[in-house]
Amino acid sequence: MRTLKLTLAYDGTRFVGWQRQAQGESIQGLLEGALARFEGAPVVVHGAGRTDAGVHALGQVASARVTFAHDVDTLTRALNAQLPEDIRVLGAEDAAPDFHARFSARSKTYEYRMRHATIADPFTRAYEWHVGHGLDLEAMRTAAAALIGTHDFAAFRSAGTETDGTIRTITRSCVLDEGPLVRYVVEGDGFLRHMVRAIVGTLVEVGRGWRLPGDMQMLLAHGDRAEAGATGPPHGLFLVRVDYH
Amino acid sequence: MRTLKLTLAYDGTRFVGWQRQAQGESIQGLLEGALARFEGAPVVVHGAGRTDAGVHALGQVASARVTFAHDVDTLTRALNAQLPEDIRVLGAEDAAPDFHARFSARSKTYEYRMRHATIADPFTRAYEWHVGHGLDLEAMRTAAAALIGTHDFAAFRSAGTETDGTIRTITRSCVLDEGPLVRYVVEGDGFLRHMVRAIVGTLVEVGRGWRLPGDMQMLLAHGDRAEAGATGPPHGLFLVRVDYH
Repeated sequence: MRTLKLTLAYDGTRFVGWQRQAQGESIQGLLEGALARFEGAPVVVHGAGRTDAGVHALGQVASARVTFAHDVDTLTRALNAQLPEDIRVLGAEDAAPDFHARFSARSKTYEYRMRHATIADPFTRAYEWHVGHGLDLEAMRTAAAALIGTHDFAAFRSAGTETDGTIRTITRSCVLDEGPLVRYVVEGDGFLRHMVRAIVGTLVEVGRGWRLPGDMQMLLAHGDRAEAGATGPPHGLFLVRVDYH
Repeated sequence: MRTLKLTLAYDGTRFVGWQRQAQGESIQGLLEGALARFEGAPVVVHGAGRTDAGVHALGQVASARVTFAHDVDTLTRALNAQLPEDIRVLGAEDAAPDFHARFSARSKTYEYRMRHATIADPFTRAYEWHVGHGLDLEAMRTAAAALIGTHDFAAFRSAGTETDGTIRTITRSCVLDEGPLVRYVVEGDGFLRHMVRAIVGTLVEVGRGWRLPGDMQMLLAHGDRAEAGATGPPHGLFLVRVDYH
């Protein structure tokens, strides 16, 4: 038995999300299918982040326990030949026997891309939220910084249940101004379902002047989802990287 | 009567090309349809470059003679509201009465994007030719430079007929190495049908060592399409800008 660590990029546009579902194509399902062909038996793949439908990845990490002996370069090439073009295996390596893509992760970094311009870009429209022009980026930066630290993020989650509480530690939370492209980059030890998109939706409301940067502390303290902003659309979100101990 | 100059960006993936056709959606056809709604009568639009099916534009220029009085900012907004998201009007202005997007053009700049890496990028695969790794970029640069000047480009055209000869003047022809992205940028007073794609196909054969950089002079001198390289696929090509006197 060996434990594989795979690094993946994917365009999430047409998938039901990372996770296998009863209906529709998932990244997990396609990867499990491709690995099962080498193994000659079912293979279970674990992903570091269970990205939702329409969410992309630049550096998702997956782990799987297999018995086949192919070297990792041959495996990378063969997986890319089998997988559709909107999923690419960027690298494969052998990991410690107890490595688990999700449970071994120390931190994850997400990025959310916004087009800060009157006119959308036809080439990146599937990968950016077109927020229009006139956002107060300085106010957004102040609001974003307030999230750094260990907080209860109950105000920034989907209605679903969480099995491991709502306290998370955020180590990076910044708004980058790159002309018509604005990127929100956030790193933390874990994220609740829809948390980054709820944060971004709230930051954009701060940028539009609908609420004050100082509201973030209040939202964290109250823990009321209804007080925070609308959830940003999935297609602006990317899982950028996963770090391990 | 006024003459409009429109600057456009479009993702050419799903179109039959710039030019109106009996079947399928064209950029010209959609733009003419949108302008006709303002005019209350048919409008003819001329494009600087008649990009083929699958070819993109970052700065196509179009001209049209119309009578309606809308100011150019209102017109830009209204056209963008009517056009599909893969076509954007970047700007509109009033031009001299005799301005014609194609006949008034002094030069056009095209860019061809290649992914110079073993693994394709899932996010840019619709906008790059995935040429693999190991290209000799220095040989390609030398070959590209040989095209600068006034030459007979008969070896680099499609089988179709040209109504205005095959002599063109190229003022810029360079291969830019940007890591996994390689861009070929070419500026000239005019381009034959499929000319940029035939040049790129030949440059890639030079890069792969299948032919020598010095072959370019021979190809120009012989003017034989069969001697040059295969035509590169359309989806790597962008009309970048059009310059006027």
